[in-house]
Parts: sequence; structure tokens; C-alpha cells
Amino acid sequence: MEPYRRRIFYYETDRMAIVHNSNYLRIFEEARLDHMYKSGITYKRMEDEGVLIPQVEAYVKYIKPITYGDELSIRVRMTEFNGVKVKYEYGLFVGNEEKPSATGFTAHCFLDDSTRNPVSIKKKIPEVFRRLMAAFEKDMSEKRNAAPALNSPMT
Amino acid sequence: MEPYRRRIFYYETDRMAIVHNSNYLRIFEEARLDHMYKSGITYKRMEDEGVLIPQVEAYVKYIKPITYGDELSIRVRMTEFNGVKVKYEYGLFVGNEEKPSATGFTAHCFLDDSTRNPVSIKKKIPEVFRRLMAAFEKDMSEKRNAAPALNSPMT
Amino acid sequence: MEPYRRRIFYYETDRMAIVHNSNYLRIFEEARLDHMYKSGITYKRMEDEGVLIPQVEAYVKYIKPITYGDELSIRVRMTEFNGVKVKYEYGLFVGNEEKPSATGFTAHCFLDDSTRNPVSIKKKIPEVFRRLMAAFEKDMSEKRNAAPALNSPMT
Amino acid sequence: MEPYRRRIFYYETDRMAIVHNSNYLRIFEEARLDHMYKSGITYKRMEDEGVLIPQVEAYVKYIKPITYGDELSIRVRMTEFNGVKVKYEYGLFVGNEEKPSATGFTAHCFLDDSTRNPVSIKKKIPEVFRRLMAAFEKDMSEKRNAAPALNSPMT
Repeated sequence: MEPYRRRIFYYETDRMAIVHNSNYLRIFEEARLDHMYKSGITYKRMEDEGVLIPQVEAYVKYIKPITYGDELSIRVRMTEFNGVKVKYEYGLFVGNEEKPSATGFTAHCFLDDSTRNPVSIKKKIPEVFRRLMAAFEKDMSEKRNAAPALNSPMT
Repeated sequence: MEPYRRRIFYYETDRMAIVHNSNYLRIFEEARLDHMYKSGITYKRMEDEGVLIPQVEAYVKYIKPITYGDELSIRVRMTEFNGVKVKYEYGLFVGNEEKPSATGFTAHCFLDDSTRNPVSIKKKIPEVFRRLMAAFEKDMSEKRNAAPALNSPMT
Repeated sequence: MEPYRRRIFYYETDRMAIVHNSNYLRIFEEARLDHMYKSGITYKRMEDEGVLIPQVEAYVKYIKPITYGDELSIRVRMTEFNGVKVKYEYGLFVGNEEKPSATGFTAHCFLDDSTRNPVSIKKKIPEVFRRLMAAFEKDMSEKRNAAPALNSPMT
Repeated sequence: MEPYRRRIFYYETDRMAIVHNSNYLRIFEEARLDHMYKSGITYKRMEDEGVLIPQVEAYVKYIKPITYGDELSIRVRMTEFNGVKVKYEYGLFVGNEEKPSATGFTAHCFLDDSTRNPVSIKKKIPEVFRRLMAAFEKDMSEKRNAAPALNSPMT
């Protein structure tokens, strides 16, 4: 899948003149929702149908500082999906660099918004389940076929 | 009323090593909700009763930069209130300084959360109306009786 | 000049399910730096040359709520510029709507980064002065020639 | 060491009406700098002496949602320190609850601000090294002596 791209904004930097560590999770979120969008799912529609996907875990490895004006490509890959839980990994690249400036992962569950109980999206919104499963299988297939050099960034 | 106090956090600064301009509106919000709290009203309860108080206008005058570790006192005063609209003004002071590092105001309306229509809190939650009116009258009385030097900060 | 465009991110919303009031100033900043960029000036280079442009005033009028997924066009116009101070006004439009969801302005001064004293960019970086002046004159000319309906959004 | 305490602010929540996942890293930062402060070190002074402590790794486990108005206690413990790298773990508790609503860790290195090269604070600022080492040993001692129930929260 095509990476998600955008520039770093001025207000994302801190006193150290680099992007504040917390903003990486915001950039991961943008990239993840873009990945869902490209898989044929708008997150807004999921919320309208009463499904929330809160984050249950997050990890970031900060490798090289990024700063105002940097142009980012964020590669996103689903690494787990079973209709109850989903996991994504991320590689964040500046300009045309081959080595990532940051990597990480996030894990999420699916909740019913009225009761805030776990929900099986396979039953509740089967079309979304099929699209996420197709995206997951495509990501896994790309991972198997990728050269080791292309896989390493996001581990 | 006692000012609202808190320190500046590291992540509130930007590349210029000063608090980012947008964060003043967040500090105003903290101080405003603290003012409501000291007037006997918890904003959470208002939302639970179905009343939202979105911002309809905001103004900030940035006078002197503030930065990480600064200890702030924020003076807040209601300057308009009629049950349909409310206006607050703010003076933001660093340490024991007598001149403000920033001033500003925000204006808000009261909305019904289901319909997003204006709501009269005098009818809907009369107890909250009375408390806000009492706070407003107290603020106005303090303003009338204050030495001019103490009024000037927040104009 | 072409408006600045981008979508609203999920993390920009708050409990009211709308964009938090402080984030408008961040969107104004993105749009202003985009306006500078389209005028031939990168803000990063200005900082590298030792010029900072802190905000000295800001005003926002919140007209209609905006929320996650909304596609924004932000029209920006310089309304004052003399080499010592600069003022921008903004109109924020959702989708193809003709009426703005928010308007506002920001004012800024030019500072020397070592001494934090006012600086005349006409003397210090004359090329930047010329480009900003050209952009200012173009904006003013567009304003004069625009139909009243197109001017009203940003007042 | 006494936990760091503060309330959740309104603007820290998102559309799901809970604290946005990225803000946990901001709360960790506040708690970590408070831990340093209580160990006799102001981070601002470290920066003034030319030492930066950027984050190199972060992990968050989101256990129970937290929301506007919640009163937090954040327990912080140094779990690694050798003068070149430092690691902290966090347990975030709402009100008087015994089970954490979130746990996590962050790892940091020490950099020279001019060259952005690693720096040994043992050589550069020995007094800071001694204070951090004392805090680390105290934290480790508390961990050894704590009942298992009190240790588990932050794993």
C-alpha cells in the first residue's frame, strides 16, 4: 500500500527544536486511519455504526530526530487481525531516506459504543470485517515477499 | 476570586523555546473551568445534564513570552452573562510579576446537546443559572472596587 | 492565492466531538506558513537567518462546528505589512460551502533571535521583505477587486 | 517517592470522550520531570548546562479509559540508570483505585546540545549524576521491599 505522506507542522516541535515525542502517536493515528480509508473503510462510518476502536497498547522507537518542515512517508502494515483485536506497525521515513527515523506499533480492540463491551465486527459489520481481513492478508503477503531490507524497518 | 495556578509543561513549548500560541487558549480553558468550579459548578455535571458551552469567540494578546517551568497565575473574570451567552476575560501572570504576560477574552453560548440549539439555562438548570449570576455579580463588583492598576491587566 | 487545504484529524476533536477551540490557531499557523511558502519564503530559512515571527495577537470567531473528517479550505490574506509587523486574516471553509465555519486574524512582529529585539527585515533580509511586500500588494489588490460576497467571509 | 498528581483537562479528551492516547506520553513526561525535580534536579538547569535528554523509546498499556475531571496519581520509578541512558516506568491511577488505568515505560539518552552527541553526565555534571544515581537506588530499594501487589502495577 502507498505510504501516508505529510509535512511536519511548526506547532509539533518543542523546545529541543524537534517533534515532541507524543506527536508520533498522532502521526501513527493519521497513518492508520489513512490505511483503513485506502482499505475501503471510513472510520467515521464505523463510529456512526456504533463501533469504537480504542488503543490498548502503543510502542515507539525514536531513531533520528525529525523537525519542522520535514516531509514524512509513513509505511503502515497490519500485523494481527481476527475481528476482535487489530495490530498495526509503522515505519516513519524522512524525505527519500531508506532508514526509518522512527518505528513502532499500536494494538486496538473493537468496542460497542453504547455498552463499551467488546464487539465482534465479523457479526456486527461483516463488510468491514471482510475489507480489514483483505487488507491484512495483502499486508502479510507483501511482508513475505519483501526483501529483508524492506522488512527490517518496522520491527 | 483566587487565581488559577499551574506551571508550564515542557510539551507546551515550541521550536522558539516558548509556549506555543495555541496553548494560551488551553490555559484559558483550564482557568475558566476552575472559575466555574469555584462558583459551585462542575462542567462535567452540566454536560451530564445535556448542556454544552462551546466557544464562539476568542482573543489573545501575547505580551511577554512564557516558557517551560514558569509558574503562572491566571486571573479570570466574567464580564457578560445573561443565561444565553457568557464572556470571560483573562490575565496571565508569571511568578510575582505585576504586569501580565498575556491577556484575552473568550465568549461562549449555551447549547442543548441533542439538538445543538441554543438553550436557556435559566429554565433548564436554574440552580446553575443562579450560581453563575452570583459569580458574575461578584466579579463585576470586584472590578468596580479595584484600583485602576488592578483592572488594567485584563483589558 | 490558492487556499490551503487539509482534512481534520481525529486527535483534533474533543469530548464535544468537534475540533477543540485551540486547534484553530494551529490551522491558522499551517495556512499562514503555506501562504509564506507560496510567496517564495520558507519559514525555516528565516529562522536559519536569525529572524523569528512570534504571534502578538490572535482572534477567532467560531461560526459552525467542524469535526473529524471534514475537508477544509483555508483562505489567507495579508492585511497589514510594513517590515516590522505583519497581520493575516483567515476564512475557514468546509467542503464546498460558501459561508465560512470560522474566521479570524493574527498579528506578528519580527524579532532578532539572539537579542529578541525587534528587527527590520527590510535591512536584514531585503529579499524576504520584497517577497512579502509583493504578496501583501497582491492580496490587497484581490480584496479591492473581489465581489463583496467574497470579501465578507474574513471580516 | 510521592506520586505526581493532577486532574485531566477538558482539551485532553477526544471524540470518544476519553483522554487521547497521545496525551499519556505528555502525562508521563510531567511525572518524570516531577520525579527529577523531587530528586533535586531541575530539567531547565540541565538544558542551561547544555544537556538534552531526548526520548529513545516509549511504551504505553491502556487498561481503563480516563476522562475529563479524573484525578490522577502517577507513580514513577527509575528502572535503569548508568549515566548514559535512563529508563523510567509509570503507573497511572485514577482517584483511590488500586489497579492502574495505564502503565508504561520510557527510555532516554543524554546528549550534548551543541553536537547532538552522547554525553557522559558523570563527567559533565557530576552533581546531577550523583542525585540521579541516589534516586535510582532509592527506587530500586523501594521496589525490592514492596509487596508484590504494589510492584505489579508497573510491569
